[in-house]
Order: sequence, then C-alpha cells, then structure tokens
Amino acid sequence: MKKPIKVAVIGGGSSYTPELIDGFIRRYAELPIQELVLVDIEEGSDKLRTIGELAGRMIQKAGAPIQLSTTLDRREAIRNADFVLTQIRVGMLEARSRDEKIPLKYGCIGQETTGAGGFAKALRTIPVILDICREIEELSPNAFLINFTNPAGIITEAVLKHAKVKTIGLCNLPIHTRMQTAKLMEVAPEEVQIEMAGINHLNWTTRIMIGGEDRTKEVIALHDRSDGLAVKNIPDHKWGEGFLASLQMLPCSYLKYYYLKDKMLQDQLEDLSGKGTRADAVRKVEDELFQLYADPELDHKPAQLEQRGGAYYSEAAVDLIASIYNNKRDVQIVNVRNDGILASLPDDAAIEVPCVISAAGAKPIALTEQLPLAATGLLQVVKAYEQLTVHAGVTGCYDSAWQALTIHPLVGASSLAKAILDDILQDNKAYLPQF
Amino acid sequence: MKKPIKVAVIGGGSSYTPELIDGFIRRYAELPIQELVLVDIEEGSDKLRTIGELAGRMIQKAGAPIQLSTTLDRREAIRNADFVLTQIRVGMLEARSRDEKIPLKYGCIGQETTGAGGFAKALRTIPVILDICREIEELSPNAFLINFTNPAGIITEAVLKHAKVKTIGLCNLPIHTRMQTAKLMEVAPEEVQIEMAGINHLNWTTRIMIGGEDRTKEVIALHDRSDGLAVKNIPDHKWGEGFLASLQMLPCSYLKYYYLKDKMLQDQLEDLSGKGTRADAVRKVEDELFQLYADPELDHKPAQLEQRGGAYYSEAAVDLIASIYNNKRDVQIVNVRNDGILASLPDDAAIEVPCVISAAGAKPIALTEQLPLAATGLLQVVKAYEQLTVHAGVTGCYDSAWQALTIHPLVGASSLAKAILDDILQDNKAYLPQF
Amino acid sequence: MKKPIKVAVIGGGSSYTPELIDGFIRRYAELPIQELVLVDIEEGSDKLRTIGELAGRMIQKAGAPIQLSTTLDRREAIRNADFVLTQIRVGMLEARSRDEKIPLKYGCIGQETTGAGGFAKALRTIPVILDICREIEELSPNAFLINFTNPAGIITEAVLKHAKVKTIGLCNLPIHTRMQTAKLMEVAPEEVQIEMAGINHLNWTTRIMIGGEDRTKEVIALHDRSDGLAVKNIPDHKWGEGFLASLQMLPCSYLKYYYLKDKMLQDQLEDLSGKGTRADAVRKVEDELFQLYADPELDHKPAQLEQRGGAYYSEAAVDLIASIYNNKRDVQIVNVRNDGILASLPDDAAIEVPCVISAAGAKPIALTEQLPLAATGLLQVVKAYEQLTVHAGVTGCYDSAWQALTIHPLVGASSLAKAILDDILQDNKAYLPQF
Amino acid sequence: MKKPIKVAVIGGGSSYTPELIDGFIRRYAELPIQELVLVDIEEGSDKLRTIGELAGRMIQKAGAPIQLSTTLDRREAIRNADFVLTQIRVGMLEARSRDEKIPLKYGCIGQETTGAGGFAKALRTIPVILDICREIEELSPNAFLINFTNPAGIITEAVLKHAKVKTIGLCNLPIHTRMQTAKLMEVAPEEVQIEMAGINHLNWTTRIMIGGEDRTKEVIALHDRSDGLAVKNIPDHKWGEGFLASLQMLPCSYLKYYYLKDKMLQDQLEDLSGKGTRADAVRKVEDELFQLYADPELDHKPAQLEQRGGAYYSEAAVDLIASIYNNKRDVQIVNVRNDGILASLPDDAAIEVPCVISAAGAKPIALTEQLPLAATGLLQVVKAYEQLTVHAGVTGCYDSAWQALTIHPLVGASSLAKAILDDILQDNKAYLPQF
Repeated sequence: MKKPIKVAVIGGGSSYTPELIDGFIRRYAELPIQELVLVDIEEGSDKLRTIGELAGRMIQKAGAPIQLSTTLDRREAIRNADFVLTQIRVGMLEARSRDEKIPLKYGCIGQETTGAGGFAKALRTIPVILDICREIEELSPNAFLINFTNPAGIITEAVLKHAKVKTIGLCNLPIHTRMQTAKLMEVAPEEVQIEMAGINHLNWTTRIMIGGEDRTKEVIALHDRSDGLAVKNIPDHKWGEGFLASLQMLPCSYLKYYYLKDKMLQDQLEDLSGKGTRADAVRKVEDELFQLYADPELDHKPAQLEQRGGAYYSEAAVDLIASIYNNKRDVQIVNVRNDGILASLPDDAAIEVPCVISAAGAKPIALTEQLPLAATGLLQVVKAYEQLTVHAGVTGCYDSAWQALTIHPLVGASSLAKAILDDILQDNKAYLPQF
Repeated sequence: MKKPIKVAVIGGGSSYTPELIDGFIRRYAELPIQELVLVDIEEGSDKLRTIGELAGRMIQKAGAPIQLSTTLDRREAIRNADFVLTQIRVGMLEARSRDEKIPLKYGCIGQETTGAGGFAKALRTIPVILDICREIEELSPNAFLINFTNPAGIITEAVLKHAKVKTIGLCNLPIHTRMQTAKLMEVAPEEVQIEMAGINHLNWTTRIMIGGEDRTKEVIALHDRSDGLAVKNIPDHKWGEGFLASLQMLPCSYLKYYYLKDKMLQDQLEDLSGKGTRADAVRKVEDELFQLYADPELDHKPAQLEQRGGAYYSEAAVDLIASIYNNKRDVQIVNVRNDGILASLPDDAAIEVPCVISAAGAKPIALTEQLPLAATGLLQVVKAYEQLTVHAGVTGCYDSAWQALTIHPLVGASSLAKAILDDILQDNKAYLPQF
Repeated sequence: MKKPIKVAVIGGGSSYTPELIDGFIRRYAELPIQELVLVDIEEGSDKLRTIGELAGRMIQKAGAPIQLSTTLDRREAIRNADFVLTQIRVGMLEARSRDEKIPLKYGCIGQETTGAGGFAKALRTIPVILDICREIEELSPNAFLINFTNPAGIITEAVLKHAKVKTIGLCNLPIHTRMQTAKLMEVAPEEVQIEMAGINHLNWTTRIMIGGEDRTKEVIALHDRSDGLAVKNIPDHKWGEGFLASLQMLPCSYLKYYYLKDKMLQDQLEDLSGKGTRADAVRKVEDELFQLYADPELDHKPAQLEQRGGAYYSEAAVDLIASIYNNKRDVQIVNVRNDGILASLPDDAAIEVPCVISAAGAKPIALTEQLPLAATGLLQVVKAYEQLTVHAGVTGCYDSAWQALTIHPLVGASSLAKAILDDILQDNKAYLPQF
Repeated sequence: MKKPIKVAVIGGGSSYTPELIDGFIRRYAELPIQELVLVDIEEGSDKLRTIGELAGRMIQKAGAPIQLSTTLDRREAIRNADFVLTQIRVGMLEARSRDEKIPLKYGCIGQETTGAGGFAKALRTIPVILDICREIEELSPNAFLINFTNPAGIITEAVLKHAKVKTIGLCNLPIHTRMQTAKLMEVAPEEVQIEMAGINHLNWTTRIMIGGEDRTKEVIALHDRSDGLAVKNIPDHKWGEGFLASLQMLPCSYLKYYYLKDKMLQDQLEDLSGKGTRADAVRKVEDELFQLYADPELDHKPAQLEQRGGAYYSEAAVDLIASIYNNKRDVQIVNVRNDGILASLPDDAAIEVPCVISAAGAKPIALTEQLPLAATGLLQVVKAYEQLTVHAGVTGCYDSAWQALTIHPLVGASSLAKAILDDILQDNKAYLPQF
C-alpha cells in the first residue's frame, strides 16, 4: 500500500462522525488520509452539511492535509476508496423507536440491536449494505468495507455470504471492556489483553491478561462485587450475587437482556410508560449535539459527545484501519468469518474474536479454550436466528423471518413471533423492498 | 442369542406394567420370555404386589409359559438378565407434583419432562440409574438396558457417558406419531414410515412415507388444519394458522411448550389455581387404576389404562426387544448415541432418530436431509442444557445446574434459574445425594 | 410404486448381462419387470444382438412376461425408465489393456479400477455417465441410476456432485465377502451379516456377525491362516503372517495392491512379459463366452460365466432393485453419500457402507465404531485422489489430474505422475473430450 | 514475568549450541537471561565440557551478565527453569546412521526425520522427552518446553497428548523460507511474511506477502525456474518443470522425498555405496567443529558452523523465547495443537502454522484459505502415520508401529514395513524400553 489513502464514510452525517474525525486527526502520522469523503442520503443532507462544516473546522485547526468533502453521490464516494466505512441508520431514529416499541407490545424485550428490535433493523439494513457492496465490487474492488452498522454481526455475515467484498465488522465493546478493566485494575490500558469470544453483542470475556499474567479470576471476582461492565446505553443492573463466579467468564453488557431478562423487561416497560424508550433519549441527545455542532466557533469534538454511548468508537475504527494500512499484524477483536475457531458454530458464521490485523485483513486466532456449554448453547440458538435473519433479509422469505423470531430466546414463541413480525413488516414497508 | 430370555422390570409396580405384560403375552411366539421379574423399592411394595398378582392372572389366562416373580431385591432381578427395563419414578408422584409447581411459582412452564420440571426429575433419576448400571456391569454385563424413565433423552445420555452398559432409550411418541398419521390418512399403520429427528421430547417429523411414497406436505397440511398430533397429557392447543406450513415439519407435541409457551403457561397457571396440575390428575387416575387392578377377577389389561397417557408404550417396548432378540434389522425410532447423524449436535449426544435394530443393538441411520435451522437452533441450546444437566446430575455441581437452567428456553434468565434451582434442591434433598 | 417397472440396461451388450437376466427371471415374483431394454453403442451392436437373442431365449424358456428389447437409441431406453443400470466400458477392452500397461512402464501398479489404471478409466467414463444423467434428468427424473461401472466409487461421487439424479453405486465385493465368510464358517449366507466400511475397492470388514453373534476375531484368525478373501481377478497372495491379526479387520482383496504392493507389482511385471495382462485374459474369456452365447440352443446362463470374475453381480443388482421397488428397508452395502457416517471423510464423499434400502433409496447406517487410523490414513489420501480425479474428469483440469496421480499411494511421485498422465491423455484422446 | 530468566538446554553438548549462545548474547537486551544451564548425559560429558568452555569464553568476551553452568544432573537443570530447550539425539550419530541405512536395505527412503528413519528416531526419543516432561511437571511446572528435537512434529504431538507441559515445537525451515524468499526477491527479510501450513517437514507455503502485497504467484514462478528452496542437508533436485505452477504452493524441501521419491531414492542408494549417508557426512563435520571448539583462543561462533545445516536455528529459538518473555504478540510459525485451524486434521494433532506468540504461548491463526486437496491427502495419511507412531512410541504397541509404517507413503507395503520395523527394534533395543 503506502499509497495516498481515500476513505469514504457512508452515513457521514451521523452524530458520531466528529468522534471519527478527531481520531483521524490525532493519528494522522501513522494513517495519512489524503481524501476523506462524507456521504449521506438526501433526507440527511442538513445534518451532513453541519457535520461537514464542523469536520472542516476541526481539520483546519489541526493543520492536517486531509482533503475533506461531502456528497450525496454514494458511487462517487466509493470510487477508488481504500476504506469504506458504513455507519448508517436505515429509517433513522423514527425506525429505531418503532423497533424498541413493537416487541414491548407483546411482552418481549425491545432493543436496538438484540432480539426483535435488532431483527427489524437487520431486515432494513441488509438490502442497503448489499447495494453498497455491489458498488464496491464495481468501483473499488480492493477496498475494505469496515462496518459499524448494527446489528454488526448479522450485517457482517450477510456481506460475507452474499458479496465479494473484503469486510470486517467493528464494535466498540471490546475496547470498552479492555478500558474498563484497566480502570478497575488500575493499570495502563496497553497492559491489558483480553480474550473475548462469541458473536457481536453476545460474547464473553474468557481470559484477562495483565502484563502477561492471567488475572481472569481476580477480575471476575471484582466485577461480581461491582457494577460489572456498564455501558451508557444499557440499564445498569447487577449480575446477581455469585453469577459471574458461577459462569467463570465476563459476559458483555448486552447479555443482561438474556441473563436478567425479567428485570430488563420490567425496566423497559416502566420507561415506555414513563421517560420514554432509549430512542427517545437518543433523539434528545442528538438534537442537542447538532445544536452544538452548528456553532461556527466549534472546532473540536465537544465533551457532550461522550454521553452519546459510543465511547472508544473512534479508537476502534482508527486502530483497525491503521493496522491494515501499516500491515501491523497486531491483535484486535473484530467480526470475521469463523473458519473453525469456534467449534460450536458453522465455519461460515460471522464471529467476534481476537484477530491478527494486517494488510491482508483480519484473521481470527485460536482460542485458549473452546467456550463452555453455558455459552455455546445460547450462541448456537442466536446464531441460528442470525442465519435465518440473513436469509430473510436477503430473500424476503416470510417463513425464515417467522422461524428466526420464533427461536430467538428473547421472543421464543411462534405466536408472539408472528404478531411482532407482522407489525414490523407493516411499519417498515418503505424500507423492506425484499418482502 | 436364542437362549431362554430373562427380563427384569425395574419399577415393576408402575401402573403401566399391565400394558407391558399384555404386550409380552400377545407377542410370546416371537419373544419367548422364560423369566420375568418385577422389582420395586420398599415404598412401592404394595403396588408391586397388586401388579404382580394381576400380571400372574393375565399370564395364567393366556397360558404363556412365562415364569413371573416379584422382588424387592434389585440385584437378584438384574443377575443374568438379558433385558433390564427401567420405568422408575424417583420420589414418586409427590415429587412430580413439586416439579410441576416450583417453576410456575416463578412464571415458568412446569412440566414433568421438559424445562425445569424435567430438570429436577433428571437430577433425582441420574444417581439411581447409574447405580443400576453398576449392578448390570457386575451381574449381567451383556444385558441391554431399555430405559423408559423420563426425561429419557437425558437419562440415556447419562448412561452412554458414565456407564459401560448397552443402552437404548425408548419413548412412545414415535409410534404414536405413526399411528396417528395412519389414522389421519386412513391407511394401515404398517404402510406408514416416518423420519423423525431430534432429541427426546424435542423432535420433528421431517418426512412421512406412505406405501413408499413421500406424502409429507399433504400430511402437514392436514395437521395444520386439524388438532395436530395430540397426546393425552399435553393440552390441545392448535399450532396456529400457517405455522406448520412455515415450518415444513411436524413438531412433536412437547414442542407446544416452546412454540406456544405463552398459551401453555396460561393454561398451567389456570389449572394450578383450579383443577390442579397434571400430577394431581395422574394421581387420581392411578388410584382408580390400582383399585381396578386389585380386583381378583381382573385378568386382562383394563380399558381405563388407555386414559393414562402411555398409548403404544407396550408396542414400543416389545417391538424393540423382539427385534434385538430376533436380530431383525428393522427400523425403529429410539434414543442412541449421535455418532455424526445430526451434524448440529456433538457425536456423544443422545439423539432420537430412526435406527436399525439388531442383535447388536440400535444404530442410527443417516437422515434424508439435515434438520433446518428452525430446528437446529432450539436443539442445540436444549442439548447444551442437557449436557450441563447430565454433568450436574452426576457430579452435583451447583454451577452446572444453575447454568443449565439459565440457558433453557423455558427458563432463560439467571435470576429465575437460581430461584427455581434453590427450591428444587431444597425440596428434593432426600433424593439428591450428589449435591 | 407398485406400477409396472421399466428397466434400462446401458451397456446391455456386456458379457455379464446373461447373469443379470438370470437374476431378473429368478426373482420375477418380487420384482415384476414389465419392460426391459438393453441399449449399447454402435460399436457394440453385434454383441448387443447376440446378448439380446440369448436373453430372449432365457426369458421365453422361463415363461416370464418381461417385454425385452434392444436398441442403440439411449434416449428411448431411458425415457420413463424406473431403473437405469449402467455397466459400460468406455473404450472397451482395448482401453483397459492400455490402462494396465501404461503404469507398468513406470514401475507402478497397472490395474483396471485402482491406481493409475482406474484413474484413466474414470476420466473416460465421467463424461459419458454425466451425459446419461442429463438424459435421465430430462426423460425419467424419478428413475434410480444403479451404477456398476468401475471405478464405481469415483463414478458415484461424480454423479452425486454433478447431477440431480438419484444414484446408488454397486459392487459385488460385499456380497462376495459375505458368501465367502459363510462358506469359511460353514453357515448359511443369510446367517452372516458384515459391517464393511470405506470406499469402493478400498474397504475393510470390521465386524462379522453370525446368527446375531460377533465372530469377528475368529473369522480374522481363520483368514490369517487361509488365503483370505480371494476374488477371481486378483492374484492370490497371502496377507503375510500376523498381518490380519495386527490389523484386526479384513481388508478387501484390492487392498493387496497396497499392502502387498511389491509382490503385486512383481507379478504384474512377470505377467506382462509372460502370459499377458488381466485385460488379455479377460478378452480371451469374453471371446469364448460370446461364442457360447451365440449358440441358438443356449437358453440359460452358461457355467463358464462364473469364471469371468463377477460372482454375485446379479444378486447384488436384483437385491438392490427389489428392495427399492418393494420398500423393504433391509440392509445392503452400497456406495452412497457419506453424510457424517465416516468421520474421517468429507460429508459429500461417496463411501461404501451398510445402508438401509427403501423406496427412498439407500441411507447409510452409523458404524459400530469409526475406522481405526490404520484405515483412515489410506482412505483419506485415496479419497483426496478421488476428489481431484472427479474434478479433473468433469473439468479437464490438467493440474488436478497431475496432483491426483501424484498423491496416489500406488504412484506417489510427481515425476512418475506426469509421465503416466501424459501417456494416458495421449492414448485416450478420443475418449477425453474434456481435456 | 519480567523476573530473572533461567534457561535449561538439554542436549547442551550439541555442536549447534554455540549458535544458540551467540543468539542469546546478541539479543541480551531484550532477553536478559540470568542463568543458563547446559545439561547432557554421561556419554556426552566430553563434548559438554568443550561446549561449556567455548560458551564461557563467548559470554565473557561479550560481557553479558549471564551465569553459565554445565551439569549432568538434568533435574537440577530443570528445577525452576523458565524455558527448557531440548535438542537431544537419543542414540547419537550411530543411531542416525542406522536410521538412514535400514530403510534403504528394503528399497525405501532412509532419512533422519521423514519416513522410516524419522520413525525410528521418534520411537527412541518419545520415552526420553516424556521423562523430561515428568521432571518439568514436578520441578518447573510453569516452564515452557521448547523442542527442536526431530521429528519435531511427532515429538510435539506426543508431549501435547501425554504431558501437562506447555510446549512449542520449533523448526528452522519457516525462517529459512522467509530468508530465502527475501534473497530471491531482493528485499529485506522483515518485509516478507509467509503463510506456511501443514505439519513439521511436510508443509507448503501458500501465500507470500512482501511489504503487505500478495506476491505468491511471482515467487512460485521464480522458484519453478530456480533451484527452489534448497537446504543444506537435502539433495538439490529441481521440482520438475511446471510442477510448482501446477501445485500453486511452495512445498518445503522435505517434500522432495515424496514428490521426487524415485530420484531421491536413487541418490541415496548411490551415496550409500559411494560417499556414505548423510550421517557419515555430519559426523565428519562434527568432528571438525569440535576440534575448532576446543581451541582455547576461540571466543566466537566459527564460520564453519554454517555448513552444519541448521541455518537460522538460533534466530528461531531466540525469536520465540523473546516474544514469550516480552509478551510481544507477534507472528511466528511453530508447531502447536491444531484446534480447528487445519480442517482436514484432528483438533488434537500437532501442526505447523503461523501463530501469535505471547506470554500465554503460541496460538495458531486461521489460514487465508484451507489447504487444497493436493496437500490434504498427503497430510492426512502422514498425520495418521504420526498418530500411530505416537501411540507406538508411548505404549510400545507392535501393531501400531507396524500399521504406522505400512501406511507411510515412503514405505507403503505391509511386508516392507514389517521387515524394516523388525530391524529397527533389533538395532535400537537399548533405546526402546517401551517395546
């Protein structure tokens, strides 16, 4: 490589983008981006303009020689790109709000990325992401598609199975876990190495090395007594006394929707009739952020962005791109094809595990030990749900969609599955051409 | 073989036994049992005497040269047996009643063989069945252990993994499905062949051949419109319009606890506060049966036994034993070691599929097609639960027990799992020496 | 089924056909063939006429109501057939002679079905068999293709992978082994059941049941001291003292080309410069047979046919077809898709193992135990050779062909492989349109 | 870690040791060895003294604060070691000479590490290495066992399966391949990254990245025209025109014994009756080296050591130990447990692939693509041989030993296998207590 880099950010008008710009500026020395294109859809053109202007001020302030542009022409953005980043939200926050509310109508968890809510989001996103892949195949066949769009695991699996694009799915949870562990253990983040295994938003940290020593048991014990790995967007229930010690692993925060299903559902139902769903909260934060962004004096990432829930999002993205560009062969936890690493899942499934990152992309590393049954059972049923969802998302097969929701542990009954599915299809008609 | 046969029936005092005796008598020509020993525990000695006397009258009436005896000495019953049948109920109906009620306290399905109820029954049964295996290993190492005791899949897996005894797990559902299909399609039962796959009480009929022709779609369509495969002991809800057509398979009745979880739970809660649980109903039927059995004039299986819920139980047992004895190499659906037949499950898992039955035992046959994702997802998570349960049942490991219930789709939350587990351990103390 | 049966025999002019006709006549009661068409190619029309006339006399003598016809129009033969039997020899005995001689030039075993000779035969046969499949797909899509053509394993795998035809590969070795064992043990053949596992012409009998009892060790010991399983067309070397006891299995006769490679090669080289190759011997036998067949008085299978080497060929064929037609669900050893039965081979490989035969075809049965390493090592390398050969046969890929021969244990060096391959391609030009 | 390091070198009297000492000295800054113990057996005490004195002079000259000692007490050397290096030669060069000659008697390749020669060496080495493991388990249970002893793959597998010691098998071929490629392509070695896959001395380089770009085809083409990857101890035949292009991979030099079996055998037979076997040549070189080493003026690694055949041996060792010590997480190609990386081999097989090296040891990385059939066929049969050999080496089972040699492609006939095996057992009696 070592040629000038072009990066296209699809969904460039996102409120997260300043985070990313900040990362690109800070790491310019090792990742000298020449051309950076922010692209969005017509409905997002106002936001794109606001973000573009803020990004321009940030870059100018830093004095980085990055050529920034914004456009509504996705093909032009993709043409000759080296990296295409996707952070799209098909249907925008209105759709997210519906995703959270529909399942709750039927007594099921309503969440953006997990369960029936994530399912709806996947159905809307798959056609768009595959369109983007078709364009990459035509216009920049050697580009890497770095996908942040949730549900990141399902989207990665859809691309792996239905496109010829080199892709890596990215989530900020792995870095978040490392950072929180460093804080908890009072060591420098670079001293901490974690082995996390599973699929996106359904994974377990099985091993924590600090300074080359295995400190897993100690960290689990500490978490068992503390609040666990809290993330901004997930209610902060404790795991329950002794549960982490019993599990002997550190589950990711999204596993609270499974392990603490009853409490989480109760919370959501209370929020629904009270302060509103998470989408409502996010909308408010976003409105405030965009007001800040629009300030022509603002030339840096505002502190309030941290509240948004995407901590370390920028680190994750820049770390990944820089390691590919510089052929670093370091270890990062990303979403890739399984290829035998998790023996309990199919070879062609997308999984989230430690990978070696080089110019050739991300290759998963064998785990110290296979995941225990307490994890594989859940993993397998949720992966079966994901496979059915990918199939439904690509083909518009109603039966696959119905069966997908039927077996999902957060739905788990065919009658509920059908009611939820029919509502989803009805309310998302405009975004589901495949059905 | 072709030597005189000795059969030992452990739990010989069961109300089902006259069914079995009836079968042995009717099929005496092909299965010439010389010695038949009914054995039970001290607490069941009254019932054993009643059953023994009835069986004696039945055999005498038939004029079959079977030497019948009853005993409380299990070792003597097992010594030199060719077939050891286990139809035990550790803790008797009192325990079953608790198994059904504890999960309901926490809003979970309470069922004898499935979910947390079946889990409790497994924990009680595993130590006893392994004791029996130790005796077989010592006293009749070439005997076949034919197990009907529920949860038959888990018990079979425990024996396969922790004993050196040749074992086959048996359920009446496969024959029941064949018989009901024959009735529905108005053909002779011997015209019907079914391919059923999965694990005990969690399986799907994927293919129905009538007179050598594949009639699967037609039968599924008929069931979609009818009541489905009803069995006496499971509430008779419809599958829901279009569900079977969507699934393209015929689920066994126990899958209603999954697919219709909400309705089934509602039913159980209503029964609990009304007519009582299934255990209560069974107790009443049993009391009536034993009153009939005690009648010194009765010398045949009374018609009321059919109400008990074990239809075709005798056929299943005698078919299996006769095929082994006569080295028939016919096809029957039983519980055996997987050995690669179901690609989605471990090789050492107990599965329920069509097998060739010969003097060498039961060997599973490759399926026409692997099960679809709609089935494998559920299968895998429930099998993970079963593996953890076997481990907990053998070792008394609290953590395995907790994780087992946590991932079971009919429990599905660690907080509920813990509460249920603690109640189970408390209420079954006398039967759980391993904990 | 139970409708009138039409059978098409492709390669109907073969000297083996009277064997088959004899079987059809003897078993007419259970397999009432209405229409029997013998088809062959132009070059074989004389033989076809001779065979057709003899078959006509045999059928007439038996008084069986089978409508017999001969034709050169393969499409007409296949149209509406229920069973298509293929017993073709592309390139006729001339090609076989070359197959046996080319490898010997380079110091490698030259054999009709195994090693480089079988490889050449596979390359010639694959295009023809796939043409036949295309016609079956069009003209009788529900027909079973029963293939005897060697190398039967490779041909079956080519059809399984590259056609949509229901196919079963058939060899007379399994019945032969059973019959020889019956003779050796002085019991009736129907008392003997064998478990044979591997791939066609590279398999091991792992278990011998006589009257329901495991007599494996005894039979192996007897063979160790006797001549082993001799077949007419393989030189009769002893296995070597202690070898079978060491192996604890009974290898098929073709394994002598591996285990006794040095002696077998020595034999072949001597024959080559002496009495001629096996093809020369067969040619002589065939000439004599056709002289007999042409006798208008002959109305039965002549005794000399037994010398030809295809003992039990007719039994194997009629057993298989009759079990499919009558939906018998009995056990026969045939070539089918692996589907997890042999854990050491890919799921889509053709293997030869005990199968349940029904109207639905042949489904393999789980083995009592997986094959030991002493067998799997050879199996895997030869199966890799077979996979490469199928690929080369279908696509004409020179590199696959070269690598196939390079790794075959009876060639085993790239330099020899290239020399042999180039000779094969040169000498078979007329039959290798794919290259 | 970061504590003072103790390294024990078993077989410290080897002529290779100065190479290793040289590496330890040069890399002292990153690998600060505090205590270095060279240990050998009584028969090697003279050599050990010579090497110890030379090493002392080298360390003194460098001024490195390494405490060096020599001992015949293996337990003391192992006690509290952090790294135990094994470079032993059970039976010394006399045994190697026999290993090379016995197979040649029967027309089979006679080579130190491959085929029947390597087999004999494995049988002698396994009992000793497992004794060492027992001592490590007792005296330094956290130590890493770094094994160079050939056949390194078999020895590693024996330790993985029969000991609880953390072990990594090491060979200089991977670095050698990288270095030769760098030279061939005229780039710096650190620019070259290779993906090599298979098992020790039977592997293929499937992918060559130079400066982050895939240059595989180009490098293969160059090798096809040049001498290929020559190593000092393997005769330098060309691969044959077009062979590498056909294979699309770069085979390791030891694969010449397979692909060019006929030529290599011819060479060996000529050498045997002429200049002597490789063991004879090595003995001469060793004698010369020890004369040099004994010179009290010599205080550095003499240039002649390069002729010995172990190029880059020191780099490989120090790279590995330094990465473990410093928890580097860089990528090196070593021998480890498969764990799903090579889908064609068992999970518990030792394989040689790129691994991430950290304080936790070596973990294999998923391959860009699974190996093609041209490689897997050979790999599987040789791995089956290795598994049987490990079993024979551990248990002394004659049958496993016989079957192992029978299926090895460089023997391949049971009669030859028996003759060779009996000679090996006879001539190595003193070193084979297990038989």
